[in-house]
Amino acid sequence: MKYFDVKTYLKEKKELVDKTLDNILPKKDCFPPQLHSAMRYCLFSGGKRLRPILVLAAAEAVGEDQHKLLKEACALEMIHTYTLIHDDLPSMDNDDYRRGHLTTHNVFGEAIAVLAGDALQTEAFSILSETEKSCFSPEIKIKVIRLITAACGSRGIIGGQTVDLESEGKEISMELLDYIHSHKTAALITASVLTGAVLANADKDQLTDLNNYGDAIGLAFQITDDILDITSSTEQMGKTVGKDQRMKKATYPSLVGLDEASRLQQELYKKSIDAISSFDEKAKPLREIAKLIIERKN
Amino acid sequence: MKYFDVKTYLKEKKELVDKTLDNILPKKDCFPPQLHSAMRYCLFSGGKRLRPILVLAAAEAVGEDQHKLLKEACALEMIHTYTLIHDDLPSMDNDDYRRGHLTTHNVFGEAIAVLAGDALQTEAFSILSETEKSCFSPEIKIKVIRLITAACGSRGIIGGQTVDLESEGKEISMELLDYIHSHKTAALITASVLTGAVLANADKDQLTDLNNYGDAIGLAFQITDDILDITSSTEQMGKTVGKDQRMKKATYPSLVGLDEASRLQQELYKKSIDAISSFDEKAKPLREIAKLIIERKN
Repeated sequence: MKYFDVKTYLKEKKELVDKTLDNILPKKDCFPPQLHSAMRYCLFSGGKRLRPILVLAAAEAVGEDQHKLLKEACALEMIHTYTLIHDDLPSMDNDDYRRGHLTTHNVFGEAIAVLAGDALQTEAFSILSETEKSCFSPEIKIKVIRLITAACGSRGIIGGQTVDLESEGKEISMELLDYIHSHKTAALITASVLTGAVLANADKDQLTDLNNYGDAIGLAFQITDDILDITSSTEQMGKTVGKDQRMKKATYPSLVGLDEASRLQQELYKKSIDAISSFDEKAKPLREIAKLIIERKN
Repeated sequence: MKYFDVKTYLKEKKELVDKTLDNILPKKDCFPPQLHSAMRYCLFSGGKRLRPILVLAAAEAVGEDQHKLLKEACALEMIHTYTLIHDDLPSMDNDDYRRGHLTTHNVFGEAIAVLAGDALQTEAFSILSETEKSCFSPEIKIKVIRLITAACGSRGIIGGQTVDLESEGKEISMELLDYIHSHKTAALITASVLTGAVLANADKDQLTDLNNYGDAIGLAFQITDDILDITSSTEQMGKTVGKDQRMKKATYPSLVGLDEASRLQQELYKKSIDAISSFDEKAKPLREIAKLIIERKN
């Protein structure tokens, strides 16, 4: 790997992911069309595809052919999208914009938004349990499903979203904020990295290293989000910004100030790079993604 | 099997299922407690446990020890409960009572109800992908996950609920009503029977027979529900009755009349018994459950 441009890498992988998602998801006109249109609407509203790309990049770091695991990578994007659709609901964060477009419930109504989210979660596990056209053994597939359910369940993402909602307008401790961030955001990012690693047959040491890498970039990603909510514009972000302050949501900048939040960001970046120091140049994409995560502007 | 009393059978199995559910689900005080309390609230509000019992009875018919597959059976009840919690939401069927108790969103609020439903779906797949304390091979577990996701996804239960919602207040064809019932209700009932059969290593013919049995009792179950919504009381049913008519929901009785609906019920019962005629007396519970399904009063 001589010259490596991370933006080109991300663009290429995003295209691969988008194409695969389009292939594996039921078409818009598949009965019932309203439901399938809603499932596709949020999924194809311009996400960065960070989670599936992390699946691919982690597999690459371990030496696996990425084309083998495109479908499994897409399952992670479906899970991420389902959580976005439900988090945006009026009874939850009540958000009008997401990825620069009206939120799903604003276009299709609340009932269809709930159902589209539900169906995307089911569809993800359906893809992960496909055996006919899969390159992976049932042993490996079960391991992947198990690790993803641990990241997504009531002691993972959903636990994080629950505490986030309950904490609105309250002063919370750094400990609780860490719980929210590590569960609501970092858990699925780490699960994405580990999905790629398990599918690529990573050994125990590699799994530990990649787990640490995932935790560090996952938390860094959320701190960056918090910082951008203060310093960025709605136009740049594609979603409503300044909302954390209005909703009196606790964030790293609100708890420790912008300077300390930036310092933490850098510390986590360093931690993520250190975690995968024993990997060779095939981990270059993972290293560059870590850098981009803290430098991103949206 | 000399003397067999189906009510005793159902009571014993229900107790086994309830005990297992209590063991495998995170405790109420597990962090975050609001979420775990809500997950348990609807799950332990007195369901009949028909789906997990069908898993056990189907496995018994094929000759498998039921104690081996209690956890997998409970996963089906979790999925059923998640769909109930979401179906009851204000944006969906807007129901105040379920299983004789206030609905989850009426007790915990809408946000927690959405999240508790989400988490119960995830938890079901988590249990189905457990390998450490499981009696089943990854091959079999993957097959079960795959068949359940097919029954629950956008071309299964969620598709059925979507069309049901869209059809409110409209005159619909018998074809569409069949779609709603076979997807919203029968799909998970058939999936429960097949889960037991696959876990018990049923052969291809047995799977076909049990599939037909499941489809027949699944549809019979829904027609009975429709009839009871007209002829029963809220007290007996534990949920709001007479609602189909008020909501102008199409049902079998409204489309073909009560008499024809009862005739259909009987026809489906006969079909279910014929489907499993090649099974020996170990299928007695399945036969008695089919009878009870059309004779039940709640």
